[in-house]
Amino acid sequence: MAVVEVTVVPIGSEGPSLSEYVSKALEELEDTDLKYELTSSGTILQGDLDEVLAVAKRMHESVFDQEISRVVTYLQIDDRRDKSLTIRGKKESVEKKMKDST
Amino acid sequence: MAVVEVTVVPIGSEGPSLSEYVSKALEELEDTDLKYELTSSGTILQGDLDEVLAVAKRMHESVFDQEISRVVTYLQIDDRRDKSLTIRGKKESVEKKMKDST
Amino acid sequence: MAVVEVTVVPIGSEGPSLSEYVSKALEELEDTDLKYELTSSGTILQGDLDEVLAVAKRMHESVFDQEISRVVTYLQIDDRRDKSLTIRGKKESVEKKMKDST
Amino acid sequence: MAVVEVTVVPIGSEGPSLSEYVSKALEELEDTDLKYELTSSGTILQGDLDEVLAVAKRMHESVFDQEISRVVTYLQIDDRRDKSLTIRGKKESVEKKMKDST
Repeated sequence: MAVVEVTVVPIGSEGPSLSEYVSKALEELEDTDLKYELTSSGTILQGDLDEVLAVAKRMHESVFDQEISRVVTYLQIDDRRDKSLTIRGKKESVEKKMKDST
Repeated sequence: MAVVEVTVVPIGSEGPSLSEYVSKALEELEDTDLKYELTSSGTILQGDLDEVLAVAKRMHESVFDQEISRVVTYLQIDDRRDKSLTIRGKKESVEKKMKDST
Repeated sequence: MAVVEVTVVPIGSEGPSLSEYVSKALEELEDTDLKYELTSSGTILQGDLDEVLAVAKRMHESVFDQEISRVVTYLQIDDRRDKSLTIRGKKESVEKKMKDST
Repeated sequence: MAVVEVTVVPIGSEGPSLSEYVSKALEELEDTDLKYELTSSGTILQGDLDEVLAVAKRMHESVFDQEISRVVTYLQIDDRRDKSLTIRGKKESVEKKMKDST
């Protein structure tokens, strides 16, 4: 299972706000069963890598419209095969290590 | 004010776990007043850009040790000057847009 | 047409060298017609977005082996629909602007 | 020595072209001794990490102007301490591995 951060950036939008585009991209998640976490830097998806990449592609596509003809999208794929990576497990693992070191 | 995601990746660590290194990097935040958010893809810092970059540099340095002689670090800097970006504001702005479109 | 930078990072490799893994990932390009540019930060692919993403996925998969059970891969997708982006065109456009401003 | 890829992205520019902003950012390199490589995905800088980060910060700042009040900048820092990383060395190392495997 993979944990993938998706950040979509429209080029040539009117004004500096991006939330409208991020919110449109998030609508692509409504029809899926993927677990996700909205952060202030992007959207983190968890699931089978092929499924996650297909959804990330749709999020990217959703940003194009009559005004936007160029989109830059960043994907950070974290894929582990010896055990299942999850959004929750990754965070808990760090939090546990921090507590242990106190 | 800037919102900056920092992801540190040690190269040549023993085994596939990364949480030990992330937790060590997070210790660099203890002596600062920076607001931050731990996500499953990295650590998001909020503050004056110079201050945030200095802390990100220290997080990167903290990963080097006797075993690790190479570190790859990703920074995603989101810097807005017409109004103050915050971790909380960025998320709330997206969540509001999603609610409005329902 | 899209221009996509792919950076593969194995976790838990023996020692700090990465070139062996990058070279293995590049073998996935041999059977394709995709134009690409090898840089010191990654591999830049040019082509139809679906085709490029499929190849990027295979590059990511190629890094897993008996030793490596976790791979972090970064994709920077630059996708423009009003005209065709190419590796060469993007660089020439910047170089022309620099010359004009001298 | 570190090898750092810098990608600057203006938000809210007029139209989909980015080359004007990239070319302006590259002017920041003129007064430095840093080795760099212009690629179709960004600019790769080589040098002492502190010096490179200071220049990357100036490249980021250069994108702000009367029209642009928000800039997203990506840094990929590759920092190796057991031997000196260079733009040329990183590429040659991969090319050598590819040749050997043929």
